[in-house]
Amino acid sequence: MSLTLPDFSEIEAAHKRIQPQAHRTPVLTSSYFNGKTGASLFFKCENFQKIGAFKFRGAFNAISRLSEAEGKKGIVTHSSGNHAQAVALASGMNGYSATIVMPENAPKVKVNAVRDYGAEIIFCKNTTEARESAAQKVIDETGATFIHPYNHPDVIAGQGTAAKELLEDHPDLDIIMAPVGGGGLISGTAIWAKHISPDIKVIGAEPKWADDAYRSFKSGQIEPVLRTDTVADGLRTSLGELTFQAIQTNVDDIVTTSEDVIIQTMRDIWERMKIIIEPSCAVPLAAIIENKMAIDQLKIGIILTGGNVDLENLPFG
Amino acid sequence: MSLTLPDFSEIEAAHKRIQPQAHRTPVLTSSYFNGKTGASLFFKCENFQKIGAFKFRGAFNAISRLSEAEGKKGIVTHSSGNHAQAVALASGMNGYSATIVMPENAPKVKVNAVRDYGAEIIFCKNTTEARESAAQKVIDETGATFIHPYNHPDVIAGQGTAAKELLEDHPDLDIIMAPVGGGGLISGTAIWAKHISPDIKVIGAEPKWADDAYRSFKSGQIEPVLRTDTVADGLRTSLGELTFQAIQTNVDDIVTTSEDVIIQTMRDIWERMKIIIEPSCAVPLAAIIENKMAIDQLKIGIILTGGNVDLENLPFG
Repeated sequence: MSLTLPDFSEIEAAHKRIQPQAHRTPVLTSSYFNGKTGASLFFKCENFQKIGAFKFRGAFNAISRLSEAEGKKGIVTHSSGNHAQAVALASGMNGYSATIVMPENAPKVKVNAVRDYGAEIIFCKNTTEARESAAQKVIDETGATFIHPYNHPDVIAGQGTAAKELLEDHPDLDIIMAPVGGGGLISGTAIWAKHISPDIKVIGAEPKWADDAYRSFKSGQIEPVLRTDTVADGLRTSLGELTFQAIQTNVDDIVTTSEDVIIQTMRDIWERMKIIIEPSCAVPLAAIIENKMAIDQLKIGIILTGGNVDLENLPFG
Repeated sequence: MSLTLPDFSEIEAAHKRIQPQAHRTPVLTSSYFNGKTGASLFFKCENFQKIGAFKFRGAFNAISRLSEAEGKKGIVTHSSGNHAQAVALASGMNGYSATIVMPENAPKVKVNAVRDYGAEIIFCKNTTEARESAAQKVIDETGATFIHPYNHPDVIAGQGTAAKELLEDHPDLDIIMAPVGGGGLISGTAIWAKHISPDIKVIGAEPKWADDAYRSFKSGQIEPVLRTDTVADGLRTSLGELTFQAIQTNVDDIVTTSEDVIIQTMRDIWERMKIIIEPSCAVPLAAIIENKMAIDQLKIGIILTGGNVDLENLPFG
């Protein structure tokens, strides 16, 4: 597979593939947060997506593009997060088997979720090397196809379909925001948004404690994540070459925010909007609030990325 | 005001009044709960309604029907729950002042919410007599209009608009379910549903620990609530004469469920659907699950009534 960024037509094609299987998630508004920010906010609720996160879109698109012959050899990935569940479910829906490499200390709730979707799990030590070598072993033995969580054109195209739906529902957005982890979501979002209108500003948001995309955006080269303890556990990853390229080309700005504002904003979203979101979801709104961004009267779309949290282990309360 | 049940045309008129001000709440589905029950479930998310509960509909309808002269004398009610917030907000939106009588031990979070909506609060002892006499004192002194939380034709008509929207979105429901507290929601729901189609079954649901409507429905007279400790704190009230009449005429059945199933179902809805609901909301689905109701392949609408919970004091975790 050549690593070339998808264009808008590949996001359109991805949407055709995904639509019959994915939820068209609702867009919610909140008088409270509109009042607090001065903007009109439109929250695209991917926490209601299958497996509880937007990751289903990219994984399903990539897996459904495989030939029958490729698919029958199985799918493999390494992840302890939402991508693991997405690959497990999307593989099963396409009639393929999946093997997920997970660190041996992965939370039991996530292990069980992956198993419930019918995937086989291989445990390994919690290092990048151990995960990659365990995945490579599966590929060598079975010819399985590896689905990268973000640095993959079909995954990026799939993630872009969330922004496509949001802009179909609200074509007059001034700004569209998404959190940045590995960068798959912001890449697909930016490619679609800039296709629809060069006037829409695309802004990524990161925790200050995982501001690698912010630093990469400023320096012009991929900078690694320096610490992995942000509460926004979905955003602890560094960019890939493809997602960095998409960000350089199509993203207007990246803003950052601090841990306490992320936690407070997460809690406020729970209490005010009555929806369950992961800490990562709260990052764009937290950045707006903390930085007092000049957004008065503007229409801002925010992609809420997922809702998989451990109710026994909340960062507040 | 004569206490006569509203008919469908009054629900239509209520909807015209409410629509510009209320959220048209989304209807969510869940593959997980469809699989678990064998039915197709459609959840009307009134937890996303203004003030976080369907109660806004009834209060707004009743208050916006007042004449300018009546409204200027103020609005009064007694409640420590969602009706208090609904009256406070709906009064302000109509340019009227509101006085809410609350028990002196009401949770601070609810007191603050009512105050945030601009209402005046009068505290009293936590007995029915104390509340009623405090409200009567306000009426005697100011000529304020009392808005009953459920035994009020305009309130019932307002609550019926949730079912109207649900049946507009999903006209082919076989069953529509709502929890029963004082009975305002199930009354409005039943009046509208039976107007749309006599074939739709309307089923109320109650905690076994607050099964007064179930017992009233069977005995043919209003039976009081016997205990007030169900976790479903919105359903601890007895029926009124109007709501009992609506239930006798239009409701097909009332089912009950136990505390542990309510709590488990509430938690499952949080985890699987990523939405925050009050314990009362979980009661219809809990009743389906506990009673193994014969609903295979049927389309069932369930009104999720509200999402105002204290995140510091959850019944699970």
